[in-house]
Amino acid sequence: MRIAELSRRAGVPVPTVKFYLREGLLPPGELSSPNQARYDERHLRRLRLVRALLDVGRMPIAAIRALLADLDRPDPDVHHALGSALQPSAANRQPLLPDTDATEAARREADDLIIRHGWQVGEHAPARQAAAEVIAAMRHLGVDDLIDKIDEYADAAETIAATDLELIRHRGDPEAMVYGAVVGTILGDALLAALRRLAQENASAKMFHQSPG
Amino acid sequence: MRIAELSRRAGVPVPTVKFYLREGLLPPGELSSPNQARYDERHLRRLRLVRALLDVGRMPIAAIRALLADLDRPDPDVHHALGSALQPSAANRQPLLPDTDATEAARREADDLIIRHGWQVGEHAPARQAAAEVIAAMRHLGVDDLIDKIDEYADAAETIAATDLELIRHRGDPEAMVYGAVVGTILGDALLAALRRLAQENASAKMFHQSPG
Repeated sequence: MRIAELSRRAGVPVPTVKFYLREGLLPPGELSSPNQARYDERHLRRLRLVRALLDVGRMPIAAIRALLADLDRPDPDVHHALGSALQPSAANRQPLLPDTDATEAARREADDLIIRHGWQVGEHAPARQAAAEVIAAMRHLGVDDLIDKIDEYADAAETIAATDLELIRHRGDPEAMVYGAVVGTILGDALLAALRRLAQENASAKMFHQSPG
Repeated sequence: MRIAELSRRAGVPVPTVKFYLREGLLPPGELSSPNQARYDERHLRRLRLVRALLDVGRMPIAAIRALLADLDRPDPDVHHALGSALQPSAANRQPLLPDTDATEAARREADDLIIRHGWQVGEHAPARQAAAEVIAAMRHLGVDDLIDKIDEYADAAETIAATDLELIRHRGDPEAMVYGAVVGTILGDALLAALRRLAQENASAKMFHQSPG
């Protein structure tokens, strides 16, 4: 297909497709004449992945380029590519509190939690710091009782992650895995937040013996 | 205590405290002289609750006033107050897709899910619409396989909500319940997102047999 059809099918404007080509996020098409290239289904899949990483995952372009290199190796490094796609992106994550002793202490609590659950997690995984910042904010706002139950929340997260990875495994090729992982994780956070509120309303109705409003 | 001490202990500037008094979010203090009022621990607790509802819950002032009225009834309506505090707030929630037939269909999927799980949820609960919008966005982005597993995510949400409500129940008085609910739910979403990523990294390391990076 020509660039116009690629653009239409992916829902990405032609100038943006050209920008991705220049940035190396999309491999060049096959030249059919000195001024015209042809693209195939692999370009379309790659283009959709790049869009998801940019728009849904809010990853910086340099990080996307590195992730694509993991996928394009003869023996794709799926674990590393998933790690890049699934880390809390810098754009989504503002520190909840300025860096203080409280955050340091919370960092140790997060590390202890990871050890207790036997989780195999890189020392510099951004989610370690993200968890520590939430714990510090919770202590600051006085909901220590919730932190006392953090292992119950960690167990629930483990159940969710098992479903996530089962889905990822079934997607087959590495590109589809990373696409599904980033879309499924980030939209999945929003889905879980909505389901949690529905389940809370139900639990509250039962606990306080009142019919829903 | 005087307004200056109330302000200091709650970490809320005096002009803001005066604004809350004028808006009826904080009951007047006891006049100790024509120009001076005294405040007590109840004012401090109420002030912290108002801050949490505004800053963490991002609730509009009118909604906070209605919620406080639920709490100040002789027989406080905790279920209704929790419902107001826990609904996905308008400020946090932008529609993921314009209102389309796809969102209508997703709304029916969300309603079916609620029926399948036997959840007692108000017909107009904002979380119904929030769930529908995420489902529609997931279909649009082609992660239908995740929606096929939505009952597993709903089960996890139910487990989490049970822990949430157990914590709320143990807080005792209605004001502390609502405070803990809004802080615990909204920071809890961020905590769960971080824990989910940690658990995903662990599951990915095991699935792809690689050591963490």
